Amino acid sequence: MSIDRLIEKIKEKNNPTVAGLDPKLEYVPKYITDEAFEKFGRNTKGAAEAIWQFNRRLIDSLCDIVPAVKPQSAYYEMYGWEGVCTLRKTIDYAQSKGLYVIADVKRNDIGTTAEAYARAYLGDISLGEGVTATAFNADAATVNGYLGSDGILPFLSFDKSIFVLVKTSNPSSGELQDLKLESGERIYEYMASLVKKWGEAHIGKHGYSNVGAVVGATYPEELTLLRKSMPKTYFLVPGYGAQGAKAADIAAAFNGDGLGAVINASRSIMCAYKKEGCAEEDFAKAARNEAIGMRDDIRGFM
Amino acid sequence: MSIDRLIEKIKEKNNPTVAGLDPKLEYVPKYITDEAFEKFGRNTKGAAEAIWQFNRRLIDSLCDIVPAVKPQSAYYEMYGWEGVCTLRKTIDYAQSKGLYVIADVKRNDIGTTAEAYARAYLGDISLGEGVTATAFNADAATVNGYLGSDGILPFLSFDKSIFVLVKTSNPSSGELQDLKLESGERIYEYMASLVKKWGEAHIGKHGYSNVGAVVGATYPEELTLLRKSMPKTYFLVPGYGAQGAKAADIAAAFNGDGLGAVINASRSIMCAYKKEGCAEEDFAKAARNEAIGMRDDIRGFM
Repeated sequence: MSIDRLIEKIKEKNNPTVAGLDPKLEYVPKYITDEAFEKFGRNTKGAAEAIWQFNRRLIDSLCDIVPAVKPQSAYYEMYGWEGVCTLRKTIDYAQSKGLYVIADVKRNDIGTTAEAYARAYLGDISLGEGVTATAFNADAATVNGYLGSDGILPFLSFDKSIFVLVKTSNPSSGELQDLKLESGERIYEYMASLVKKWGEAHIGKHGYSNVGAVVGATYPEELTLLRKSMPKTYFLVPGYGAQGAKAADIAAAFNGDGLGAVINASRSIMCAYKKEGCAEEDFAKAARNEAIGMRDDIRGFM
Repeated sequence: MSIDRLIEKIKEKNNPTVAGLDPKLEYVPKYITDEAFEKFGRNTKGAAEAIWQFNRRLIDSLCDIVPAVKPQSAYYEMYGWEGVCTLRKTIDYAQSKGLYVIADVKRNDIGTTAEAYARAYLGDISLGEGVTATAFNADAATVNGYLGSDGILPFLSFDKSIFVLVKTSNPSSGELQDLKLESGERIYEYMASLVKKWGEAHIGKHGYSNVGAVVGATYPEELTLLRKSMPKTYFLVPGYGAQGAKAADIAAAFNGDGLGAVINASRSIMCAYKKEGCAEEDFAKAARNEAIGMRDDIRGFM
């Protein structure tokens, strides 16, 4: 099972964290953007090259520390199809360095369209005459369950993992997710029950399902409740670092086996060089130090 | 206001329909795929070329009949970054032919990431030194509101339209959307109330808001209720044609002014040549005839 591969990488590195790769151009050191724009012009092709060079060096510097990376698709799509080309190159490169790749795409659609997204991010596509190809070929993807089973089941046709949005980390997540149903359950709790049901037939040898959940570290009470109610669901936990959650907040994301969650940090790692005020040429080293600090911080609470 | 531009195109063509451009490779006539694969090889580049040639001819054939097209992003992403390049070319070409383009991307994320998606599909991006570029530059996008305001408001920074998923057309849409809240409202009704609130400050001269809603034609009762409760919200209505809804089902989507809804059909138009059994070289003509038939069918019920 795909989730077993993630768990094994987490165990191997004794590190339940994932580095988010959300390469806004303003995060990229100037010497890299200058070089890219000089080569390709100040256009989306140049921007795509800059974020590729940034990612490549971050991956080189992080690949023996973290088990996984999570590219956030928006920051590639923002630079058009050239940016999307960098997304594919980033996924391939990260996998070549032994990393598990979670494509943070939050896709959602119905029936055949959900199947198209599933094939795009996790599966393969047929080009006729027996020829197949892969579009992005990630190990896992984030998905939104507002459309019900039709939008989820097509993603389970491959042995890959998904993380369904349950309780998101943002300030307004409660506007819909916290509403109480007639039954007394809140919407996010009901979504959690759907996630459990979808995951039942996809449980791997470590006891966790290929169907995971996104649960923000910024809501530690909800995180604690959800951890108890869905023991076989792996959590992808955003909110650590720049969004304000501390290691103590996320301790509740783990089960007694020390597994069950992978904690994401993006900006705090990518922009560590800015916070530390070191030379921009040392950005990858600063990111590495930050990732090590985060690992040790979280280990300390487990 | 962006929504006024859509309305004016609908009035001009006296046709409240939108042609979905969901170019699965199996929908494309063989002579087009053969030519593309011969030129570029049987790979994603060849597939992207095939769907581009398909789209281009469909747009040529439909542009004086329909006011708008709706490319479904999944069918481009499925062919990797080359497919995504075709998405951009399709949007540009459709706009050059006077069409309003709704990017069906159902994006959703938080804060700065929602802003990145908004810039990608509706706005522009900064490349430094005062240089800007556009990634996809559509006129409207579909979005998912599960994350609350944080995921929606960034899309309203430009004068473009959005259509928020309220009641989707798929069989399992009720699994979450139809649940009753403590207040007695159903989730989709609550989402509708959020959509109204988000739209209040963005109402154009025809009395409709830039913040629209996706409401499936396959649920005519819900469609009727929502039409009454959100008179200023434009509806993007999928489900006509291949998904089974008839013109009588969608009549309820319109207000007394004959406005308020744009009805989508994708497969029934794109694959009309297969249904009619005509020569595949006549696919664009068959699509045109189908679009005319749909227009007249819907006009008859208004």
